[in-house]
Amino acid sequence: MGYTVGLDVGGTNIVCGVLDETGRLVGTLKRATEAEKGFEHVIERIASMVLELLAEYGIGKSQVAAVGAGIPGFVDPLRGVVKMAGNLKWTDAPAAAALSQRLNLPVYIDNDVRMYVYGEAAFGAGRGFDVVLGVTVGTGLAAAVVDRGNLYYGAGYMAGELGHIRMDGVEYECGCGMTGCLETVASANGIARLARDKAAAGESPVLAEWFGPDRFGLITAADVSRAYDEGDPAAIDAMNYAGKMLGRGLSYAATLYSPDVIVIGGGGAQAGERLLAPVRAELQRLVHPMYWERLTVRTAQLPDHAGVAGSAMHAAKRFAAAAGT
Amino acid sequence: MGYTVGLDVGGTNIVCGVLDETGRLVGTLKRATEAEKGFEHVIERIASMVLELLAEYGIGKSQVAAVGAGIPGFVDPLRGVVKMAGNLKWTDAPAAAALSQRLNLPVYIDNDVRMYVYGEAAFGAGRGFDVVLGVTVGTGLAAAVVDRGNLYYGAGYMAGELGHIRMDGVEYECGCGMTGCLETVASANGIARLARDKAAAGESPVLAEWFGPDRFGLITAADVSRAYDEGDPAAIDAMNYAGKMLGRGLSYAATLYSPDVIVIGGGGAQAGERLLAPVRAELQRLVHPMYWERLTVRTAQLPDHAGVAGSAMHAAKRFAAAAGT
Repeated sequence: MGYTVGLDVGGTNIVCGVLDETGRLVGTLKRATEAEKGFEHVIERIASMVLELLAEYGIGKSQVAAVGAGIPGFVDPLRGVVKMAGNLKWTDAPAAAALSQRLNLPVYIDNDVRMYVYGEAAFGAGRGFDVVLGVTVGTGLAAAVVDRGNLYYGAGYMAGELGHIRMDGVEYECGCGMTGCLETVASANGIARLARDKAAAGESPVLAEWFGPDRFGLITAADVSRAYDEGDPAAIDAMNYAGKMLGRGLSYAATLYSPDVIVIGGGGAQAGERLLAPVRAELQRLVHPMYWERLTVRTAQLPDHAGVAGSAMHAAKRFAAAAGT
Repeated sequence: MGYTVGLDVGGTNIVCGVLDETGRLVGTLKRATEAEKGFEHVIERIASMVLELLAEYGIGKSQVAAVGAGIPGFVDPLRGVVKMAGNLKWTDAPAAAALSQRLNLPVYIDNDVRMYVYGEAAFGAGRGFDVVLGVTVGTGLAAAVVDRGNLYYGAGYMAGELGHIRMDGVEYECGCGMTGCLETVASANGIARLARDKAAAGESPVLAEWFGPDRFGLITAADVSRAYDEGDPAAIDAMNYAGKMLGRGLSYAATLYSPDVIVIGGGGAQAGERLLAPVRAELQRLVHPMYWERLTVRTAQLPDHAGVAGSAMHAAKRFAAAAGT
């Protein structure tokens, strides 16, 4: 089937990669998205990146079976349309057709989290498991399920919005317009905010020393991890609380989806066991032993290119299905 | 493809039905299960029922494509083994092979709730919708999802245990060994227990008049509906609370599965709008409008034979897939 190209299109950067027929990543290219210049500009930019990368490795377009792209937003993969992508400011954008026309290659688009989880399921931390529940703990919190190689989509391709489960006892307003969504606490932004609020309340000696009261707004989840390692009580509390709430949300997902493995990725996953330990403790406390006993909870293994590999391999699969092979 | 036979095997009764090639139910037969006499006896009994029903309608075995059976418990449909069925007292029982050997026909078994939901999705309240989430509000609470004609199974075929999500604020012990499971309140048994507890606390003038303090243990969910219609405050509270908690659990399921329709069946569904009104109110309060706006919540339409029709049609589908047609 030849080479496949995968794209991870973010609000800030685009990563483009080419995979050979064995699924090995041959090479990648990263560029700023320049989303502010509009849809046509970004499509043109993506097409140029694809052609440049292929040229760099001496791969002819005729050797490429399919191109896949993960887009952050609501995507209709069947029609190839981005229904709404907030960061890119795209609405009802026919991205697959536009890119396919520009490249003269089959293009398949999908949601970026689904492609990331598909990549982790095929090549990363989910490899070898039947049912993979992948979550990205980043700016927000999102999830996708790969059941024996197939993504679960749900109606309107809207399944897996773990971040927008409403949690008892959580009162933060969410960017989605609701209050108390899980992602307001169980996300990299949520962890940072919890720690900032505690620092502002005078509960964090370490963060107070590092930032000073006027600069608490700069605290990130990575800072919380560093303060955690210094024994800062506010950082430890924030991480434990975020992990506990994530574990609670995952207990619902584990009982409804019955995964073999939960793969935790995204920027927040860099907290590692600081976050995963309370996640596991709460999951074990809440789910029936029949789920817990078969469940593995681990961090993602391909943080840099799961999205690229996933979208390339998913495009190859869809191309093969369309070709009836 | 000819006729198909479907079986709904309960702890108390077995219902057997035969469907013609258009999916129309030709006739049914109902017998006591006699589970206490053991696995071999029940298999023999099922086989006799199938043969008797076919004879009654003058259908030869050669005209039957496949036999399907829904079993209440943990079923491995691929291996055709009942891993554990509490009511039948079966463990690792090779039911498909045993029945197939006795009938000399292809037999496919699956979990009874999945077959019920499959039947409602194909012929009942879920017909015409892409993604159907079906729940049975009975002795317990269980769920299954049919996504564009395909059941979602999860690892170990254990997906959909909505009844065993742990709910904040619920403290009842569950038969599964945990505490606070959703089904301890959001089930026919749960509704009855809530009302009994309120009656015992002197809060139910109507149930107190009907039953008297020594017979509160006899109150059923149907009695709670009757008392509800008499304006009994305890009955109204019990129904509203059960509906609210079910709505809360369904808000998690709606956000994770993204169904187009939620079909509520089982004995508890006979409460109708008394239960569905608080379910809808809590769902609307908790899920994002993008889910709520496309969601239909309705009661099952085939309470008597969804399981029979579902297992027959699912068996026909599996037989066709196995035959590569």
